[in-house]
Amino acid sequence: MTDTLSRHAVIGILGGGQLGRMLSVAASRLGFRSHIFDPNPDAPATHVADAVTTASFSNETALTTFANSVDVITFEFENIPISALDVLGSYCAIKPDKEALRISQDRLIEKTFLQSLDLQTVEFVEVCDLLSLRNALDQIGTPAILKTRQFGYDGKGQICIVKEAEASHAFKSIDEAPAILEKFVEFDLEISVIAARGINGSVAAFDPGQNEHHDGILRKTIVPARVNVRQKTDAILISAKILNALDYVGVIGVEFFVTENGLLVNEIAPRVHNSGHWTQNACAVDQFEQHIRAISGWPLSDGRRHVDVVMENLIGHDIDQIPKIFEENNSAIHLYGKLEVKPGRKMGHVNRLIQVK
Amino acid sequence: MTDTLSRHAVIGILGGGQLGRMLSVAASRLGFRSHIFDPNPDAPATHVADAVTTASFSNETALTTFANSVDVITFEFENIPISALDVLGSYCAIKPDKEALRISQDRLIEKTFLQSLDLQTVEFVEVCDLLSLRNALDQIGTPAILKTRQFGYDGKGQICIVKEAEASHAFKSIDEAPAILEKFVEFDLEISVIAARGINGSVAAFDPGQNEHHDGILRKTIVPARVNVRQKTDAILISAKILNALDYVGVIGVEFFVTENGLLVNEIAPRVHNSGHWTQNACAVDQFEQHIRAISGWPLSDGRRHVDVVMENLIGHDIDQIPKIFEENNSAIHLYGKLEVKPGRKMGHVNRLIQVK
Repeated sequence: MTDTLSRHAVIGILGGGQLGRMLSVAASRLGFRSHIFDPNPDAPATHVADAVTTASFSNETALTTFANSVDVITFEFENIPISALDVLGSYCAIKPDKEALRISQDRLIEKTFLQSLDLQTVEFVEVCDLLSLRNALDQIGTPAILKTRQFGYDGKGQICIVKEAEASHAFKSIDEAPAILEKFVEFDLEISVIAARGINGSVAAFDPGQNEHHDGILRKTIVPARVNVRQKTDAILISAKILNALDYVGVIGVEFFVTENGLLVNEIAPRVHNSGHWTQNACAVDQFEQHIRAISGWPLSDGRRHVDVVMENLIGHDIDQIPKIFEENNSAIHLYGKLEVKPGRKMGHVNRLIQVK
Repeated sequence: MTDTLSRHAVIGILGGGQLGRMLSVAASRLGFRSHIFDPNPDAPATHVADAVTTASFSNETALTTFANSVDVITFEFENIPISALDVLGSYCAIKPDKEALRISQDRLIEKTFLQSLDLQTVEFVEVCDLLSLRNALDQIGTPAILKTRQFGYDGKGQICIVKEAEASHAFKSIDEAPAILEKFVEFDLEISVIAARGINGSVAAFDPGQNEHHDGILRKTIVPARVNVRQKTDAILISAKILNALDYVGVIGVEFFVTENGLLVNEIAPRVHNSGHWTQNACAVDQFEQHIRAISGWPLSDGRRHVDVVMENLIGHDIDQIPKIFEENNSAIHLYGKLEVKPGRKMGHVNRLIQVK
């Protein structure tokens, strides 16, 4: 394993949000130091990192200096400009590589990629103007969901179309951006798999979690998910197929709809994932450490879990429940150190352990 | 609870070793920031803290500035000069307060304090010169252990005396420092209790751990300890008695010898304790977070444990086992980011979970 980083290596992390914060802490547990790159000088990860660069992703000088000061670069969010990765990649390895980012940054490319692997997705049609939207509605029917190809997260950049007459209004609401129209799919439940692939091609997955969304934002992940052995195995095998096809290194989040007709892949996130936060308290090695292990060339954990768990996000003023949650003896609190409470803002999460002596 | 710190408070930590490092990470999980005070600019905790002051504990200006920049002060080791605490205490609350430090800094004062609570300790006699050492040996017999009153840890500052004729040599070996002579005690096993007391006087304890030492240094803690319910209850009640007597706020480590004649209190450590590291992976709330909860005025966890665990220290070149430990799927690795490997130096620890599905 020639690519294995030494114990004192520096992990460069693009993005200083809560995912970067928890990656940084996991890196420190393995003896590494972390260096955060984020335009916001008070981003959550800056509170726990060894070094911080505060600069824009278009600042080539800052990117170059950063890349030369770290031993490997990874990222905590997918909307990093490819131009920034091009600069960074000239000086330092980026893991996972930018191909996974390029695919997941665009819903059309992502879904086309998934279908090229013979994986089932929700039926979709490309939308580039109002005419193609009307044609798409004819083809797919209503209700349907119009989603921008790029920059969507937490329910942003998407709108439900119930009647064909809403087409024009809906297209305007997404600023007439390039989009796809997805058929509205009936599903039993949503699950996600947090999987990882090492430098040597080994793959490991945590148990699928069952996700509950509200207003497009993840609220809860319940583990184990209410799926049968066949569904669980399929979800993990599909995740492994995606990882191998991308020659991926690191942790990926794969979201599925569980339907009467099998599993549909909803989307992939080439990074640690909110629906994997439960691993922090239910596994010896959590998703954050698993990612650091992968990108630093160390062996993956097999992802085993020693307790059942429900992860609940604390969104906006959910944070006001903290005094009550402190009274719960089976609950592990994780706050992100964000000063300002805003509606829809992820302020923290709590992992409630279920099987306790 | 008027003393409860807000979510964005800054926790000042005296000492930047591995205990300060893990306290700092626990503070961040609760949304706090940490500020480390340590003379060593590359101390382990500095890698994960939001702010760092690099200065000597005799630097009054640095102490004053530090105290004015944090919301509460705590410490990770007991040998902090009382003069430094006097300066700091004029500007900011110190928890636990310096009385606990004063007692635990001196074995004679500590043991006298424990006896004043009607607790059993090993038989001991004060030693101030060679004559009093010879008298002590007459009184206690051999084998016996000569221990400096101050600055002893990890087996340092102590020597075993097998024959009376060794008295002079032994006294020289501890630089003729003020000392105590302890009777050599036969015991079945050593256990420790990690207990905590909140600002409101509530007390909670983790399960006793069974400790294995080698060359005076803790090697392993096994949980649960091989004690009966009576012994376990006694150990926890004794710990609570000590906490209450000190009007203590924070986590304390209490070491016991389990003997035929009951529990003897060996020593107390007014801080998080190496033998409590197992809590990181076996409890929803670990000793580090428990300490931060206590000093910040938030409720304590009841200390419940959801899995059995063995903690093993990685001392000196034990760190070379890390590649093998990475292959163990039930093992949680915790490295301290120390660059130089030295014999006897604590480089990290591993928590091996025992009851896994």
